[in-house]
Amino acid sequence: MRPRIRLLIGDAVALGPGKASLLEAIDDTGSIAAAARSMGMSYGRAWQLVQAMNGDFRAPLIERVAGGRGGGGAALTDLGRDALARYRAMEVQADAAVSDALDQFTELLKNPP
Amino acid sequence: MRPRIRLLIGDAVALGPGKASLLEAIDDTGSIAAAARSMGMSYGRAWQLVQAMNGDFRAPLIERVAGGRGGGGAALTDLGRDALARYRAMEVQADAAVSDALDQFTELLKNPP
Repeated sequence: MRPRIRLLIGDAVALGPGKASLLEAIDDTGSIAAAARSMGMSYGRAWQLVQAMNGDFRAPLIERVAGGRGGGGAALTDLGRDALARYRAMEVQADAAVSDALDQFTELLKNPP
Repeated sequence: MRPRIRLLIGDAVALGPGKASLLEAIDDTGSIAAAARSMGMSYGRAWQLVQAMNGDFRAPLIERVAGGRGGGGAALTDLGRDALARYRAMEVQADAAVSDALDQFTELLKNPP
C-alpha cells in the first residue's frame, strides 16, 4: 500500500480521481446504476457526476444505450474513452516523475507503507 | 488549469492540496485560526487537519508557540517545513511531466481555460 498520486485537473471540476473511476466502472458494467453500486456510490451522485462530465466536455463522455437487462444502459463515447485514457496516461507520467521523491517522502511518515 | 497531486496512504490523504495550503497559511499567519480564516475554512476543520498531519508523520508538522497577539500561535516545525517543501517540489515535477499532455487534454473541454 504505497502512497499513490492522484491527478486533479484544476480543482477536479473537469476530471478527477472519482470521475475517472466512475468512467471505468461504467465501461465495465454498462450502466450508471451498476457502476455506482460497484463503487459504493449513490445513484444520484453518479448521475450528477455523469451530467457534469457531459456538460464540461465539448461532447458527452457517457451516452445511453438501448438493450441490456434493465432495458437500457450506458456506455462511454469515443470522447469518453479518449478522455479517460489521457487522464490515466497523465497519472502514469506524473507518478514516474515523482517516484524517487515520493519514496523519500514516505520516510517522513510515522507508518511508512 | 494545472494538475495537482494528492499523496494517499490507503484512503487517507497524508498531504494534499488542502493540507499543503493550510501549512503555508499557518506559516504566513502564525496561527491556525488566522490561517483558517484566510482560507475560508472553519477553525474546527483546520484543527482537524492539523491533528491529522501531526499524527500521520513521524513527528508533528505544526507546533504551538508562545506569544503573539492572541497569547499564542502556531508555527511549522522543521519537519513541517521539509514536508511542505518536498510536496511543492513534487507538484512542480509532476506539473512539468504532464504539461504537454495537459495542454492537449484541455482541447477536449467545452470551455478550455
